[in-house]
Amino acid sequence: MDAEKTRAEVNPDLMGERLKCNFNIEEVTYIIDGGRDKTLQRKQDSGASEDSVPEECLNLKERYENAVRKSCVYANIVKNELLEITGLEALGTPVLRRTADAFFKEVSPFMLHLGMFVPTIIGQCTPEQQAKWLPRALEMQIIGAYAQTELGHGTFIRGLETTAIYDADTEEFVLHSPTLTSSKWWAGGLGNTANHCIVVAQLYTKGQCQGTHPFIVPIRDLDTHEPFPGVKVGDVGLRMGFNTADNGFLRFDNYRIPRENLMMKNAKVLKDGTYVKVARHGKLTYGTMVFVRVTLVREAAFNLAKAVTIAVRYSAVRRQSQPKPDEPEPQIIDYPTQQHKLFICIATAHALELTGAWLWRTFEAVLADMRGGNTDSLPELHALSSCLKAISTSDSAAYIEQCRFACGGHGYMLSSNLPLLYSFVTATRTYEGDYTVLLLQTARFLVKAWEQMESGNPLTPTLAYLALGGAKQKVPWSATAEGIIRSLQAVAAGKISSCSDNIKHLMKTGMCFEDAWQRTTVRLVRAAECHCRAVICHTYWSEVKLLTASCSENVRIVMEQLVHLYLVFWALEMTGDPLEVYHMGLVDAFDLRDEILQSTLGAYDGRVYERLMAEALKSPLNDAPVQASFHKYIKPLAKAKL
Amino acid sequence: MDAEKTRAEVNPDLMGERLKCNFNIEEVTYIIDGGRDKTLQRKQDSGASEDSVPEECLNLKERYENAVRKSCVYANIVKNELLEITGLEALGTPVLRRTADAFFKEVSPFMLHLGMFVPTIIGQCTPEQQAKWLPRALEMQIIGAYAQTELGHGTFIRGLETTAIYDADTEEFVLHSPTLTSSKWWAGGLGNTANHCIVVAQLYTKGQCQGTHPFIVPIRDLDTHEPFPGVKVGDVGLRMGFNTADNGFLRFDNYRIPRENLMMKNAKVLKDGTYVKVARHGKLTYGTMVFVRVTLVREAAFNLAKAVTIAVRYSAVRRQSQPKPDEPEPQIIDYPTQQHKLFICIATAHALELTGAWLWRTFEAVLADMRGGNTDSLPELHALSSCLKAISTSDSAAYIEQCRFACGGHGYMLSSNLPLLYSFVTATRTYEGDYTVLLLQTARFLVKAWEQMESGNPLTPTLAYLALGGAKQKVPWSATAEGIIRSLQAVAAGKISSCSDNIKHLMKTGMCFEDAWQRTTVRLVRAAECHCRAVICHTYWSEVKLLTASCSENVRIVMEQLVHLYLVFWALEMTGDPLEVYHMGLVDAFDLRDEILQSTLGAYDGRVYERLMAEALKSPLNDAPVQASFHKYIKPLAKAKL
Repeated sequence: MDAEKTRAEVNPDLMGERLKCNFNIEEVTYIIDGGRDKTLQRKQDSGASEDSVPEECLNLKERYENAVRKSCVYANIVKNELLEITGLEALGTPVLRRTADAFFKEVSPFMLHLGMFVPTIIGQCTPEQQAKWLPRALEMQIIGAYAQTELGHGTFIRGLETTAIYDADTEEFVLHSPTLTSSKWWAGGLGNTANHCIVVAQLYTKGQCQGTHPFIVPIRDLDTHEPFPGVKVGDVGLRMGFNTADNGFLRFDNYRIPRENLMMKNAKVLKDGTYVKVARHGKLTYGTMVFVRVTLVREAAFNLAKAVTIAVRYSAVRRQSQPKPDEPEPQIIDYPTQQHKLFICIATAHALELTGAWLWRTFEAVLADMRGGNTDSLPELHALSSCLKAISTSDSAAYIEQCRFACGGHGYMLSSNLPLLYSFVTATRTYEGDYTVLLLQTARFLVKAWEQMESGNPLTPTLAYLALGGAKQKVPWSATAEGIIRSLQAVAAGKISSCSDNIKHLMKTGMCFEDAWQRTTVRLVRAAECHCRAVICHTYWSEVKLLTASCSENVRIVMEQLVHLYLVFWALEMTGDPLEVYHMGLVDAFDLRDEILQSTLGAYDGRVYERLMAEALKSPLNDAPVQASFHKYIKPLAKAKL
Repeated sequence: MDAEKTRAEVNPDLMGERLKCNFNIEEVTYIIDGGRDKTLQRKQDSGASEDSVPEECLNLKERYENAVRKSCVYANIVKNELLEITGLEALGTPVLRRTADAFFKEVSPFMLHLGMFVPTIIGQCTPEQQAKWLPRALEMQIIGAYAQTELGHGTFIRGLETTAIYDADTEEFVLHSPTLTSSKWWAGGLGNTANHCIVVAQLYTKGQCQGTHPFIVPIRDLDTHEPFPGVKVGDVGLRMGFNTADNGFLRFDNYRIPRENLMMKNAKVLKDGTYVKVARHGKLTYGTMVFVRVTLVREAAFNLAKAVTIAVRYSAVRRQSQPKPDEPEPQIIDYPTQQHKLFICIATAHALELTGAWLWRTFEAVLADMRGGNTDSLPELHALSSCLKAISTSDSAAYIEQCRFACGGHGYMLSSNLPLLYSFVTATRTYEGDYTVLLLQTARFLVKAWEQMESGNPLTPTLAYLALGGAKQKVPWSATAEGIIRSLQAVAAGKISSCSDNIKHLMKTGMCFEDAWQRTTVRLVRAAECHCRAVICHTYWSEVKLLTASCSENVRIVMEQLVHLYLVFWALEMTGDPLEVYHMGLVDAFDLRDEILQSTLGAYDGRVYERLMAEALKSPLNDAPVQASFHKYIKPLAKAKL
């Protein structure tokens, strides 16, 4: 472990904090990873990035080229894992998920090849189609992107404008982009990298629109990489982050693909153009979407863990002010205002990681059900993954910023890695279902469930608590974990009930359902948020009880205190006092290698100032004492005497 | 006006929204600018940036060079305004403040030459010293930076480590950086641009430390631009934003400067080394600091106005979903959740702009007092500017992000300009006094005032309301503006009172004041925040009443509704319904040229999708259909068959 190598040179303040830790850090690491096996598996890989100049100093083309180079190196490293993939479950392994972060400070242009192209092949292809496409994709013979969003259309998939018109004479689909706003936009890896793309388009057969369907579309020549005639593809321009992700646009001019390239698991077009829909279609297309949302919950937790590791370590090294004359400047971690900022971030990282792991297991169970033909649990998983994706990405982004604020000016240096972590996670709040839109999807499920309950129908497991609100009984306040969770559930149930009442009330005044729903949306978003917080609190608490059952006493105590802090935080404003001495062990337990943190402020050794200066000296602006622009511009200006 | 030129091509949805506006937009613009004269003055300038490739696509050196080039062009444009500057008041003119934003997408390396170097010369030099330095600085014969913060020391100025030891033999100061952490760090314009720097260092005369003092230090040869022997200067590396601001580090190795380079307005060192302190010293050094904070309040308002102009215009153009079958997709501005996000942003931009203008006038009055030798009102101004700087920058950054979220995925495009606006404003939350630190400074003033009131001493104007809390009487709720303001004031007074009680209580248990204060800091921060919100609400309301006294009826109504929305928002959660029809006129009234918005999403014409595509096509990654990295990396990977 790199940490051990450098232990001798560790900043003494940081060392002092670590000595205060009274529990076994590795035990906590196992809890977060989901067991000792998984921790060992995760630590097998020790790859690392190797940029001599920070990649953000390069120009856009150089950054892209560097990202492609690293992606190819990385693809070779993980090739064994790749070739074993047969189902979505395999994409949840820590090795694939977590070691990439040591390679890419931003994002690989191949990310969505594995993150969306491969999962969609698994989810939407017939077995014959899978046999054709999956091995080639896993062997990286073809590289794919996933293009659904258009320049003028995101959330509302039915509004997509790209058309795929079946031509029975040639047994081909004709792809076309009829308007500027129908241009595909945003797809990662699409701009310059991918040679194939899954394209979601409006399918027309025999003159009739059958709605949106996914197609596998070859877009570039495998040998020359030139786009095919009829395909216009390019880079969408710079983003707030993801600037090495190669997000692209794509337009078709009556571009033809074979009939077999419709992904036919859920709907087929026969040679003569007859459209055949598989009955389960509606629900099954949720599959990939739910997979991505579940994955994003864990990504949110993981990135928040990085940020708070950086911020807590730096807070032990940084000293500031002199509250008492003649005493040395305290470490900033000793200020209550700093603890107030950081402890909730540690607790949230734990809460989201454990909730994410639980959600992943739920997802695996639902996948197993679906293979047996049972899709009953899919709507609940969909509602759950929607709100958890929204809240986890939003909370994680907000707390990463809080970590950055807690690091003062130096948190603003890119070399702290906090700005990049924020720009990465704040994107996940929007893509794959915007925050507000997803909460409204969950709200729709909640209001429906509420009304079913009122009609005497049974509730699904995560909604069982609604009966609390249904009984309209006051829940007495209790400061125990169970008591707080019950209160949060009662609040959520009350809000769902009140939204349902409001909609009914408006409809009684003659308003149609759609307008009544719209008028209630601000409150519905809040109701879904409360529901989601109740779910997280409940899950976090249950998981900790489960996972610490066989732990050593001190680990159990600190895990329970952390859960308590989280519960009390969401019940009322609090100061974070109870955990004062444990913070360093808690962030070390995230067990994040320096190569993954990529931060001057948060490295294991706490040599903050040495690293900041060393990183500064790598700037191309330090390669000569006088930059050319002085002679070109500044000197003439001074001579001119304005 | 550019807007008029392109009016013929304006997006029809945006045009439709504008037609709904029932008030005179120019009247509102005059209110925001502080009068018709100021609006006309602001509009005199029509300069603009002229990058053919987005500057973020360039590498760091090219970006810096481009910024220097533009700075020199800009310096020539504003030379007349520059040469007229004799006092800090002149630096508040809209021309200097606002037209620079059309030139620089990020920040000019000259920004702190005008923003800190010149103001400090005005504030800290004797008349003789001013006569020597000010004309040269204003004519751009010398370019200066301001270096106070060190790698290991920010907030706590007494902790600075750089030393300036007087050598009476040569009548020189010897500047030295004894440690790594004493390296000056962060100073804008210092890395490669400035040839002079104001350096804050610990002054030693006759073996005794006299505390920190500012020195004017020549650091580079005016002709060759080479750093002088004994000076090590460079770039600090990349930041989250400000990447063209040339933030630098600076180290001295026993570097000598003449005795006259101590800025001697407040303290002198005589030839023999005798230290002479001017009595008013302590309070007067606040001057520049307060100036910068006052300026930042208006910057926060201005940048939020840009963000909300972009977001509201885009929300009129963007259409999404289909709540009712057979009806077209609504403009997203029609969704209550979107209004809920955006209307408070409009109101906040107004509140901060008017509060900032009021604060600037207060600042001018205090400056006038000080010229007459009266510094009594400085502590109140200091406390006021501290909390207003903290809250305005923090609120503005948060609402800029909210505007970005409201623009969905496209808000994440750099070409929307929302990410850059956020990275710029979020920095202002930290620099020149961190959020938490500044609120604690205000809290110290508040608790002191509270205790003085309890001892029967009179309260200063902005604190007169504390008497409400002192009387411990319940303030009855009233939904009028005055009623809401009174309630907010009562809440603030209650929190200040409770902090004061808590500190006294802890001290009675034997705790020293410093520890009792620390233990109360989380609550003190909240108390100062509440005080500040009460001040903003009160000021916003009073200013609107004053400024709309002679307005047309419809303008007065909409301004009062906006103030009401702001007041009610801070009193309780609300939906924003009352203002539904006015939003477009309100953002057009900010009267921000497209060159200042620099946004594909927010231009006057609303041609969002055309601009996004045009901007994308400027990306260097679109200059050839196949990038070199394909042949170098991807093709060999595919051929290798993993």
